[in-house]
Amino acid sequence: MTSEVQQEDSDITTRMTLLGQQARRASGRLRSSTTQQRNGALMAMAAELSSQRDVVLEANARDVERGRAEGLSEALMDRLQLTPARVDAMISGLETVASLPDPINGIDEMRTQNNGLRIGRMRTPLGVIGIIYESRPNVTVDAAALCLKAGNAAILRGGSEAFESNCAIARCIASGLEQAGLPGHAVQLVETTDRRAVGALITASEYVDVIIPRGGKSLIKRISEEATIPVIKHLEGLCHVFVDRHASLDMAFDVAFNAKCFRYGICGAMETLLVDQAVAEAFLPGMIARFQSEGVTVRGCGRVQALADVEPATEEDWLTEYLGPLLSIRVVDGMDAAIEHINHYGSHHTDAIVSDHFGHTQRFMAEVDSSSVMVNAATCFADGAQYGLGAEIGISTDKLHVRGPVGLEGLTTRKYVVLGDGHVRT
Amino acid sequence: MTSEVQQEDSDITTRMTLLGQQARRASGRLRSSTTQQRNGALMAMAAELSSQRDVVLEANARDVERGRAEGLSEALMDRLQLTPARVDAMISGLETVASLPDPINGIDEMRTQNNGLRIGRMRTPLGVIGIIYESRPNVTVDAAALCLKAGNAAILRGGSEAFESNCAIARCIASGLEQAGLPGHAVQLVETTDRRAVGALITASEYVDVIIPRGGKSLIKRISEEATIPVIKHLEGLCHVFVDRHASLDMAFDVAFNAKCFRYGICGAMETLLVDQAVAEAFLPGMIARFQSEGVTVRGCGRVQALADVEPATEEDWLTEYLGPLLSIRVVDGMDAAIEHINHYGSHHTDAIVSDHFGHTQRFMAEVDSSSVMVNAATCFADGAQYGLGAEIGISTDKLHVRGPVGLEGLTTRKYVVLGDGHVRT
Repeated sequence: MTSEVQQEDSDITTRMTLLGQQARRASGRLRSSTTQQRNGALMAMAAELSSQRDVVLEANARDVERGRAEGLSEALMDRLQLTPARVDAMISGLETVASLPDPINGIDEMRTQNNGLRIGRMRTPLGVIGIIYESRPNVTVDAAALCLKAGNAAILRGGSEAFESNCAIARCIASGLEQAGLPGHAVQLVETTDRRAVGALITASEYVDVIIPRGGKSLIKRISEEATIPVIKHLEGLCHVFVDRHASLDMAFDVAFNAKCFRYGICGAMETLLVDQAVAEAFLPGMIARFQSEGVTVRGCGRVQALADVEPATEEDWLTEYLGPLLSIRVVDGMDAAIEHINHYGSHHTDAIVSDHFGHTQRFMAEVDSSSVMVNAATCFADGAQYGLGAEIGISTDKLHVRGPVGLEGLTTRKYVVLGDGHVRT
Repeated sequence: MTSEVQQEDSDITTRMTLLGQQARRASGRLRSSTTQQRNGALMAMAAELSSQRDVVLEANARDVERGRAEGLSEALMDRLQLTPARVDAMISGLETVASLPDPINGIDEMRTQNNGLRIGRMRTPLGVIGIIYESRPNVTVDAAALCLKAGNAAILRGGSEAFESNCAIARCIASGLEQAGLPGHAVQLVETTDRRAVGALITASEYVDVIIPRGGKSLIKRISEEATIPVIKHLEGLCHVFVDRHASLDMAFDVAFNAKCFRYGICGAMETLLVDQAVAEAFLPGMIARFQSEGVTVRGCGRVQALADVEPATEEDWLTEYLGPLLSIRVVDGMDAAIEHINHYGSHHTDAIVSDHFGHTQRFMAEVDSSSVMVNAATCFADGAQYGLGAEIGISTDKLHVRGPVGLEGLTTRKYVVLGDGHVRT
């Protein structure tokens, strides 16, 4: 390593440490902030974004121009580009978060012990949350809003391609915070495109309580491997629909079609369809024809191939999140085989059974080890807005802390409160 | 590395992989087990321990003999040794866990969305839990019981000094499982004293969902640094009592004394006493005399030294969990300084305020970032039994997932259940 590189490394570390210290101090002040202050800041941010709309759009235009010159993909360019409608969506997102109930400082499960101590659990902020995301500039606003509402300080590290957009948005956020009398450091943007800043952020365990990466699978995998701080992560959605022998086949026909075709690219899209052998012959030929006429390429196990003209499915197919117009289908011997397939090959994200049999639905719910289990509903419902969370920071495929769509509650923790009257132990 | 060592490494990995696969399979079967089966297994284990009492005590006697020959410390020998009374405690512990409500498969927060979907959250097992602990053989029973009750498979790795005791206890556990028709692999003991088994266990992310270390700080620190699986950990308890200017000084006198002197060695023992300067002169001389007459060495800041004959406290004292008859005392300017001291120097475990001022108690509860915050009660109450949890697997000093005393709920997670009637997204 040359001494120049060492110097740069040390500069990055120094800057990230400063950000961390500032965030920790701001987090302390947010703990004592009122609901009105936090909501006021959100509304002030919305007003600021509205009045600075042209500045934000101009900054974004420069990012878009640079991205085009650098030959970014069309998909990336689409995520990067802001329009007046997208700015409106950011503004109304802020207003929505402001309107949600305050998730912190409530106390529940308060019980009186035999010795008279009253013990309950209080929801409190996690502290400092680091968000690492890719090209979409709207994440800057959405993540800041949710963290702030839950009383957390946030350190945001957006994609380098959206750098100017993010800086312009961050100025609106800081202004909103200050107008509400909250510390400007409650939301800080990492204002460097240096990749080493990410490494410093995900190991700053003294200053950061949790990391939430948002973006492609490779980003999330790398961050969760390298972080020394807990990560709330969303890996993949390899979702299944199981058509039980006791299913209404008409219902299964619509639910399975919707689960696949509502949108191919969402994490709740069905990737593998499992069908009980007892209904395979009655169900599959028509179902497969419908998928194929929609332009979905179908791959199947041997028993599927015996019923329709489809490509052969391999072991690899059961393990693949296509996120596109591709579907694998397997005929299984019944409930047990379906549950075993899902728990073995799935990603524990969202899985559905179509069945009219009470006992089968109960077993499916208890035994399928996924963040969402559905009965007679399409997997594409797996989404914070559909679940009534009001706002979503992501979907967790972890088991600890929070599982499935993550709303404000996932950005909080609970402490015990113990209320006495001079109680001592004897 | 010699090829012999490589061979041994690979043997350990193979054995741990087998344990992991067996645990994963057993975990699947536990998801479909009934409450009656799990409670029946716990009662059968209790009966087995009772009938095998002599076998267990003889195995323990061999461990004790070997430990004495190897010159283990008195403290370690005390933790290692089983007596008829300690076996009775293990048996009644099993009966207690059996009598607790089933923590899994309940559904709460079920709400109907506008589209008619009913969405709720179901408590489910975490899956496979790895427990790593030191000399106490009773942990083998306690940990197995709590994991099983919550529907989890357990892999237990006890201290090598208790190896024979643990093997004898594990046979009672396996027998109890089989009598209840549950898989014997639901609870597995790592039957090797090879330290590499720990390394293999804490990185087996495919087979193990969470690691819970129980033991000294160095063990826990090492495991949480090296694990690639989430760890629920208990680091240290550097607890404070703050005597507010609005405290009843008589109450403060008893609460602070009890917080320190109930038992020096527990994690909820007070290590630093903070006193508002407004009441320092009225409160501290008598308080310090009481501690000193009890044999507690007192160290204080300059303002404390001006009021009583105590040793000087250094920065290091504010950071030290003494776990013994030592206490540091600091006079602070008021609430703000007390909260800042606690959040900066404390371990976020348990902290108490003594005060009759409503606003001060509310601020203390909201702003002190600890797993338990207490008002007018001694910090030594921080304990699962005192909190009414029924049983405790440890105390978490983490913020995510579970914080403070960990009972059965901490060994579960929640999945979303989504109940429809053929719902599709449009």
